[in-house]
Amino acid sequence: MCATYRALCRHGYADLTMQDIADEWAKSKAALHYHYDTKRGLLLAFLDHLFESYTERVADPAEGTPHERLHALLAAALDPPRADATRELRTALFEVKAQAPHDDAFRERLERFDRYLQAEIRGVVGAGVEAGAFRADVDSDEIATLLVTLVNGAHSRRIVLGDDAGVPEAIRSFVDDHLVEEATADR
Amino acid sequence: MCATYRALCRHGYADLTMQDIADEWAKSKAALHYHYDTKRGLLLAFLDHLFESYTERVADPAEGTPHERLHALLAAALDPPRADATRELRTALFEVKAQAPHDDAFRERLERFDRYLQAEIRGVVGAGVEAGAFRADVDSDEIATLLVTLVNGAHSRRIVLGDDAGVPEAIRSFVDDHLVEEATADR
Repeated sequence: MCATYRALCRHGYADLTMQDIADEWAKSKAALHYHYDTKRGLLLAFLDHLFESYTERVADPAEGTPHERLHALLAAALDPPRADATRELRTALFEVKAQAPHDDAFRERLERFDRYLQAEIRGVVGAGVEAGAFRADVDSDEIATLLVTLVNGAHSRRIVLGDDAGVPEAIRSFVDDHLVEEATADR
Repeated sequence: MCATYRALCRHGYADLTMQDIADEWAKSKAALHYHYDTKRGLLLAFLDHLFESYTERVADPAEGTPHERLHALLAAALDPPRADATRELRTALFEVKAQAPHDDAFRERLERFDRYLQAEIRGVVGAGVEAGAFRADVDSDEIATLLVTLVNGAHSRRIVLGDDAGVPEAIRSFVDDHLVEEATADR
């Protein structure tokens, strides 16, 4: 999986060959084929691997106030560790996303990331509304949809722009202003 | 440009050749090369062409209330006409986006779409705040950043999911709840 990671960073998705991955692994292509029949099979396994570390990283920390937990969740989804090293990987994964309309197995695996993030956000927002930390009129489903879409948009814009364009800050103030309004509207 | 459009829809970006485009044009590859030296040059011209129609479509309608104008702008950015026919094109453009980190000319052209949308939204929101149609504490720059990011995220999620997942509705209620709150917070 580390070899696949490095090969994707180095070559991107479109041009990636089994040979590239075998080279990073420092083993033969035959040895690689012993484990994975095709590049597609190996990449599906790689997406499973990424999803596992995603669920470890982007999980409700379950400590602190709901407001703090939501910020921590979003920061983990927006700013992965080793952001520089992962720029190439993000770009490669963006290319993988473009395969989703053509391949249901890719689509299914990619959907899982958003579904997981959506459930975690909905949980924290729901807990915050219940505890009175967030406004009572907040719809946790709708907020989760907005925030997952903002995270997707942030990743997409970062690839095109090469920088954040103030998006993480805008998302943070959205949470502060929209969910935790000091003077709550009376409805 | 129509031939390029059709060829992109049919073949996607990665596998596209000048021959594919010439075939759609029903002329020879030599005739195509007479106008464009490379596939890259042709695609850059195609992005310019798309940008022109984008600015016609996604412009502040300048009629109606700021609230109505903002909804019209966002609907145009989210739901292009002929949405079915453009699914393949969107996917191809998504692949083009993945080229941005490697090619400044692509990046520049792609940035223009977001910059244009951001300026149009900022203009309408600013006008709405000034006219008292939107809350006085709305920061038009920040709202424009959020909405442009939401539009990017909506496109990205639509490609992976194959459907809207309720995103356009969530964006509409965000505008209604966040910008036009009946009981305005007192700050």
